[in-house]
Amino acid sequence: MGEFDLIDRYFKKPARHSDLGIGDDCALLRTSPGHQLAVSTDMLVEGRHFLSTVNPRHLGHKALAVNLSDLAACGARPKAFLLSLALPQVDEAWLEGFSAGLFQLAQLHDCELIGGDTTQGPLNISITVLGEVPHGQALLRSGAQVGDDVYVSGTLGDARLALEAFRGHTGLPEAVFTHARARMETPTPRVLLGLALRGIATAAADISDGLLGDLGHILKASGVGASLDLGLATSLLGCGAFWSGPSDLIETCILSGGDDYELVFTAPSHCRDLVQAAATQSGTPVTRVGIVRSALGIDVLDAQGQALTRQFTSFDHFAAS
Amino acid sequence: MGEFDLIDRYFKKPARHSDLGIGDDCALLRTSPGHQLAVSTDMLVEGRHFLSTVNPRHLGHKALAVNLSDLAACGARPKAFLLSLALPQVDEAWLEGFSAGLFQLAQLHDCELIGGDTTQGPLNISITVLGEVPHGQALLRSGAQVGDDVYVSGTLGDARLALEAFRGHTGLPEAVFTHARARMETPTPRVLLGLALRGIATAAADISDGLLGDLGHILKASGVGASLDLGLATSLLGCGAFWSGPSDLIETCILSGGDDYELVFTAPSHCRDLVQAAATQSGTPVTRVGIVRSALGIDVLDAQGQALTRQFTSFDHFAAS
Repeated sequence: MGEFDLIDRYFKKPARHSDLGIGDDCALLRTSPGHQLAVSTDMLVEGRHFLSTVNPRHLGHKALAVNLSDLAACGARPKAFLLSLALPQVDEAWLEGFSAGLFQLAQLHDCELIGGDTTQGPLNISITVLGEVPHGQALLRSGAQVGDDVYVSGTLGDARLALEAFRGHTGLPEAVFTHARARMETPTPRVLLGLALRGIATAAADISDGLLGDLGHILKASGVGASLDLGLATSLLGCGAFWSGPSDLIETCILSGGDDYELVFTAPSHCRDLVQAAATQSGTPVTRVGIVRSALGIDVLDAQGQALTRQFTSFDHFAAS
Repeated sequence: MGEFDLIDRYFKKPARHSDLGIGDDCALLRTSPGHQLAVSTDMLVEGRHFLSTVNPRHLGHKALAVNLSDLAACGARPKAFLLSLALPQVDEAWLEGFSAGLFQLAQLHDCELIGGDTTQGPLNISITVLGEVPHGQALLRSGAQVGDDVYVSGTLGDARLALEAFRGHTGLPEAVFTHARARMETPTPRVLLGLALRGIATAAADISDGLLGDLGHILKASGVGASLDLGLATSLLGCGAFWSGPSDLIETCILSGGDDYELVFTAPSHCRDLVQAAATQSGTPVTRVGIVRSALGIDVLDAQGQALTRQFTSFDHFAAS
């Protein structure tokens, strides 16, 4: 199968919202009046972002999910995306699964594929997403204020726990591994929560590199610091509902795990009811885990209110794994 | 050097036109009133799109040039781009050269880098470009009319000639090789010509897969065919000004070479003066090489007006090379 047949068979769908979709040199689209375009891109590489054994349907889901997660962090509504794909060879079963997982998530968010590129090469998936947000209402990293609450959505740490098991660093009961692996392979982008938090959250980011790392981005951009309640944070392990693991491992997974694709955000303390209403409206649990303070850096406080002295490093794509 | 240091050092520039550039989960921008956004993406893989020995400055140029060429084909004005980069390792000399070549071309077209992603992996460069075009004025592939003239810009075939020499399929005098290699490594996106052809050209595409292949896309989208004058077409080899090579090789390079990044376009015959004025205004030579007809397919006519019977295949990224 050649490049154009491959595109026609697996990826070409009629444009519904865009003025022009796949098939010309460019796609054409418009943003709604009074809106800004929000754009982000993420590249996934085999062995670094996913294992070669991953179910291609899950991979299709994840490749788009991690991009939609960036739109979620900005409170932007997904609109369209472009897909560049380097494949070692044309494997129809793989393409069938990958495209099915990709389009299932795309349809859920009414986000259409409007362009892309395919080529032969080491497996690499690069997606660019386009969304829109009413002018001036985007959630940015830079708006956190001293005294704001710090929240995270959903559960944290399960993806990292699965990775530790895949690497043979820890053994897990089968039910725990299955749960953790699902969180690693099919994360849920918090698009609805991001939309519901417009006008409420003062700052937001998605958690792709670990809670401390991504909260750190907010704090740095806002020129503030924070303290986190370790007990509240570690209660967020999804598997924690039915498994008690070593606390060191759980702390590492929660605080510097990465690959969570939850949102970390800040909001004024007088907005607690509004935050909970946004959580309910979007069907996404949120947990208050800390507070913004003026002193720079992040202190993680134990049950006695003492700052942990352990160092946690966030995920770096050029670090040895 | 970590991921964020690398971005800060080589790629982060202040946003000039966009509302928000690199450093948040998304970039934010607006299109001008009455304009559509034009979007395209191209992925370059080592060994398939460039050789491992290429000068990184040239590679930075080419990675953006092939994307700008898609905007040119639509008559869109470049606005911004996103860069995803997988690198085997952090090589500062390489990054220095690559980013210098990239930004030199970006500045020439006032096109700013607003986002991206970097990761460890087999060398892969994926760029998404964003441009804008007045509503309804984009040049599409689908507008060619029977009786229209067929034009190409600049010169054709030199990039393929260089590739044939690199592969050891042909020997070239040093001056010819140097010229051809420059065309392969640092193509000129015909952005100004694309802008000047708005309202004149009825259809356009950029020549990335070879003249016959890309003209074929126009004809297929327009439901028409064309005949090409072989003599006019083969006169377009840039090296042809100072080198006479085997005619079979030259025909292959011109007709199905690929990697030219010139424009092929159609325009009504009563617009010949306007086409030449657009060429002059944009400083880009254009040559009339054929005519659109109702019979489907492309006939390449020799000096006696006889159709060539040789088959030419266009470049396919999944074909064996």
